[in-house]
Amino acid sequence: MSLQRLTALRALMASQPTALAAYIIPTADAHNSEYIAPVDARREWISGFTGSAGTAVVTSSAALVWTDGRYYTQFQQEADMSLWTLMKQSLPDTPTIESWLASNLTAGSVVGVDPHTFTRDQWTPLQTALTKASMQLTPVQTNLIDEVRTQMGDPPPKRPNNDIIALPVQYTGKSAGQKISELRQKMVEKKVSALVITALDEVAYTLNLRGSDIEYNPVFFSYLIITPAAVQLFVNGSMADAVTSQLRAELAHISVLPYTQVLQHLQALAKELSTTGDGKHSIWLSSDASEAIHRAAAGVDVLKTPLNLISEVSPVSLMKLVKNDVELEGFRQCHIRDGIAVIRLFKWLHDQIDAGATVTEIQASDKLLEFRKDESDFMGPSFSTIPGAGPNGAIIHYSPSRDGPQKIIEKNDMFLLDSGGQYKDGTTDITRTRHMGKPTAEQKSAFTRVLKGQIMVGSALFPQGVKGNVLDSFARHSLWEVGLDYAHGTGHGVGHFLNVHEGPSGVSWRPYPHDPGLKPGQILSNEPGFYKVGEFGIRHEDLVEIIKITKDSKHPKAATLVGDYDGRGVLGFNTLTLVPHQKECIDVNMLTDFELSYINAYHARVLDTVGVILQQRGLNQDLQWLQRECAPMRRD
Amino acid sequence: MSLQRLTALRALMASQPTALAAYIIPTADAHNSEYIAPVDARREWISGFTGSAGTAVVTSSAALVWTDGRYYTQFQQEADMSLWTLMKQSLPDTPTIESWLASNLTAGSVVGVDPHTFTRDQWTPLQTALTKASMQLTPVQTNLIDEVRTQMGDPPPKRPNNDIIALPVQYTGKSAGQKISELRQKMVEKKVSALVITALDEVAYTLNLRGSDIEYNPVFFSYLIITPAAVQLFVNGSMADAVTSQLRAELAHISVLPYTQVLQHLQALAKELSTTGDGKHSIWLSSDASEAIHRAAAGVDVLKTPLNLISEVSPVSLMKLVKNDVELEGFRQCHIRDGIAVIRLFKWLHDQIDAGATVTEIQASDKLLEFRKDESDFMGPSFSTIPGAGPNGAIIHYSPSRDGPQKIIEKNDMFLLDSGGQYKDGTTDITRTRHMGKPTAEQKSAFTRVLKGQIMVGSALFPQGVKGNVLDSFARHSLWEVGLDYAHGTGHGVGHFLNVHEGPSGVSWRPYPHDPGLKPGQILSNEPGFYKVGEFGIRHEDLVEIIKITKDSKHPKAATLVGDYDGRGVLGFNTLTLVPHQKECIDVNMLTDFELSYINAYHARVLDTVGVILQQRGLNQDLQWLQRECAPMRRD
Repeated sequence: MSLQRLTALRALMASQPTALAAYIIPTADAHNSEYIAPVDARREWISGFTGSAGTAVVTSSAALVWTDGRYYTQFQQEADMSLWTLMKQSLPDTPTIESWLASNLTAGSVVGVDPHTFTRDQWTPLQTALTKASMQLTPVQTNLIDEVRTQMGDPPPKRPNNDIIALPVQYTGKSAGQKISELRQKMVEKKVSALVITALDEVAYTLNLRGSDIEYNPVFFSYLIITPAAVQLFVNGSMADAVTSQLRAELAHISVLPYTQVLQHLQALAKELSTTGDGKHSIWLSSDASEAIHRAAAGVDVLKTPLNLISEVSPVSLMKLVKNDVELEGFRQCHIRDGIAVIRLFKWLHDQIDAGATVTEIQASDKLLEFRKDESDFMGPSFSTIPGAGPNGAIIHYSPSRDGPQKIIEKNDMFLLDSGGQYKDGTTDITRTRHMGKPTAEQKSAFTRVLKGQIMVGSALFPQGVKGNVLDSFARHSLWEVGLDYAHGTGHGVGHFLNVHEGPSGVSWRPYPHDPGLKPGQILSNEPGFYKVGEFGIRHEDLVEIIKITKDSKHPKAATLVGDYDGRGVLGFNTLTLVPHQKECIDVNMLTDFELSYINAYHARVLDTVGVILQQRGLNQDLQWLQRECAPMRRD
Repeated sequence: MSLQRLTALRALMASQPTALAAYIIPTADAHNSEYIAPVDARREWISGFTGSAGTAVVTSSAALVWTDGRYYTQFQQEADMSLWTLMKQSLPDTPTIESWLASNLTAGSVVGVDPHTFTRDQWTPLQTALTKASMQLTPVQTNLIDEVRTQMGDPPPKRPNNDIIALPVQYTGKSAGQKISELRQKMVEKKVSALVITALDEVAYTLNLRGSDIEYNPVFFSYLIITPAAVQLFVNGSMADAVTSQLRAELAHISVLPYTQVLQHLQALAKELSTTGDGKHSIWLSSDASEAIHRAAAGVDVLKTPLNLISEVSPVSLMKLVKNDVELEGFRQCHIRDGIAVIRLFKWLHDQIDAGATVTEIQASDKLLEFRKDESDFMGPSFSTIPGAGPNGAIIHYSPSRDGPQKIIEKNDMFLLDSGGQYKDGTTDITRTRHMGKPTAEQKSAFTRVLKGQIMVGSALFPQGVKGNVLDSFARHSLWEVGLDYAHGTGHGVGHFLNVHEGPSGVSWRPYPHDPGLKPGQILSNEPGFYKVGEFGIRHEDLVEIIKITKDSKHPKAATLVGDYDGRGVLGFNTLTLVPHQKECIDVNMLTDFELSYINAYHARVLDTVGVILQQRGLNQDLQWLQRECAPMRRD
């Protein structure tokens, strides 16, 4: 089957106006989405490999996939290894795609890419590298995989076109009209004639609309063009009356156009701008917009002198990074309800296992979904739950299959549970790790070190405007002291009832080049971990809100402040997540006095906040369990 | 006077083949040196402003200098403010030079720069910005300031041409022949036909030669070109016999050519390479090499198709970053001798002040130089001593003038002394801060927090290969907790009897883009501080050596290691600097048990190492003082 597909693709490559020596198929949609819909799963279809990351390159004689260490085994199981070559991109000796092409194709070769599936930021360096090697990178407007699928009678599924809902201002805190007017103000300052919004969560944020076209991400396939005079939404299907009337009420006067017409509208706009006024118009867009959008906006194919583009971090991305007061209060509220669901799950799980019942990872995950469904404004999980029991906890992006044998959560397993919910008032993402019986000394020590790292970040004070990177080492300090570490970042931004991973800030040793510096009102995760391959995994993940700290703030370090970093301002965190850590896994003697009182105060706050609701709801057994879990710890 | 100079410069700008709308005069020499010789102090001559940093821009109607916050007051005192405009580059609203030019010159304007005074890394973004604004950046080969000076009968001083000395292998640990052969091996791997070395410390390092053409930096004006067949050194003046015979003994077969001929030799080389073999030759050089060198090496003016350049971090810079065993042992040894000099100075200073004598900052600095001169292999200071008493301690780059009234070090002053020495076996850089009488509670608290930061870095363990950036926040953590910070980086690399600031690694929140990742054998400074403007400054600066740590290492955290970061390897520091911290300034109750035992162990090591030498030399009073300073501290 894979051979047939490859053969048909190669025939199509050869029959292009200039024959393609190579065709690149990334894992991507036209909006640079982190998760993609099945209609865009082209690399999966051609290679057979179903992992979430990887780029395929097909030449007349070779077929390769570059992917990372998470997927080496899976690739070899899923792909036909007589046809496909695995390029292990985590190994330092593996050539990059650029250098592989440069050394394996002959000079003069033409490499094709669907320009919808590459961002400008990805396109430019590849183009430069190929030009240096006397080769050419060419945009192929029609996607060749889609064409092959159609030819072979296996056309791609329809692009989703699910109902769009309107999110009222009681959740968003700012009307769509207000957001558009603020963006137009920025357009005036930037002296641009149009702003093109291409990221799906940015369109949803700007218009206070939500969708469900991509699993876990409440977005809908669309583009948005804002000019001083008009707002054009390019979207599939029609808008429900409720949506239209909210937009009207929020003074967002938009015209709705077909999703597929965005390129021709951009070209027409470029043409129009090039002939009006002094001809010095610019169009503003994200450098993460696709190469296809960049070309259309510049009028590459329709103008002699392309229009000037300002291609940089999107102003919408910077606007939604800082949550407003209503969004922040929503985050606080949904974390209380989400905490209840997670607390009930762990109480239930311990009861089951203590009673000798059999619970699989997926059953635990399903039960958690049930508890979340009990909570108001719950809209669905914010990502695929990671329920890692025993050795599976050490697989950072673990996702158990519903097919085949199931892993049972055993009495002597550590159980890492990473999950989150989408609520109308916010998005959650929490990891707690609990031992189902009695942890070993090694597990307690690692658990406590990860917790010390989380506290060092959670309690840190830092100057306003520093990048999130400066906090990363705090999370690792206690682990580093004994030669341990974890192979992922410490924190990511989170959208407000939007994507659970949101840029442009983050906490990692890796640079976040577009991080504008930390400000009050941002949401970040705080999630150090430790993974012992083949044995167990530990991760403690909270969401935190960045707050401004003065001497009077409610923060354990506020009272002893003597400066404000020479006027820059003091920032710290308010932890949103409200679920206790398992005390049996904490070695109290490894904690400093500060850490011990910090964790006791956190547990007291969890009990105060969540306990009262459990009581109101008559969930007395859950309350009793929580009281025990939150009772203060003391040193031996 | 300044007007005459400006008028002459403007006349010269107007008379260029294409008239210059602006001429840019950076603070720079042709080698991207951090410190420059008087012959290259062109910005100083045209503007009258003598600060160490700043870039002048002269147009037909405007004359501006961009400089940073250290120099605002000095600029206004030194420059003729009726002619010159100060551009405060530390303020966020100050336009960059690029954007000032783009908005203040008319389209079509030509901006001139001496391409010797701009690196390729500086040239390219300026060129891009000007092109966007429909302007042109043009290289002006003859320096217009030099020309004006000659016209006006005030020619620039002669380029220094001081004696070059040969540094024997007992200090360098590796012969020049060996270094050249390793570089040639890298050239083979990189498939290049020539390597051009332009940084003065890189030439000195490669050939095991030292000079004194730039104050404090033991370098000499030169370029070096290495090809598979030849090594060409471009240098002023002749080489002494001792130098020639060491080079011969070290199997470094070099030909010596005049310094001023490097460009024409590079052009000839480019021409020759373009016509031999397959014509696919490349030349390798640093992206910090000047634009003039880049153009000559590519043959821009002599070839139709310029030669391919590989312009990136220099391989010599990466080679000398990791010190060999002989260099490391030299560093350890010269730090013992340097410690003796600093210890003797502080003992002497306290005696003087306790006895009521008057000691100025400069007298203390001169006395320190005397003590350093007592030490073997001392070659001179490694930078201009910073002797900041009282409020002067808060001026980070303070340098007292020998003219005018002198600041006396008072009994109730904090005294910050930052100094270093060049020794044949290594380079030192140390800051100690001591109160001459009784510190206030605020001073003790700040002193202790800075010390806690230094200990957190000095005792850190971290994975091999991480960038220095990840350590920066450790140095600030204790200060950040109370809203304090310092406005400089935490650590810089140090050359081996070479520049006291050496790239490409560093410890800062600012990215060090060429940091290849930390490795054993690197030298870094560890220097947190705190500055209360108008009152006092505190800095604790040690040099540290990066060492590999295993369970058996001599390191306070070695015994408790349980991992090696999954095989990446554990790194830590060995502190080289050996001078005690003033115990009267340490609030012992703010230290953790670990910190208290760490500082006591450090003081015991200082006494063990230095004390025995003081005893051998019969410096009994110094020994007694040191014994008191190094006696263990206990908690109240």
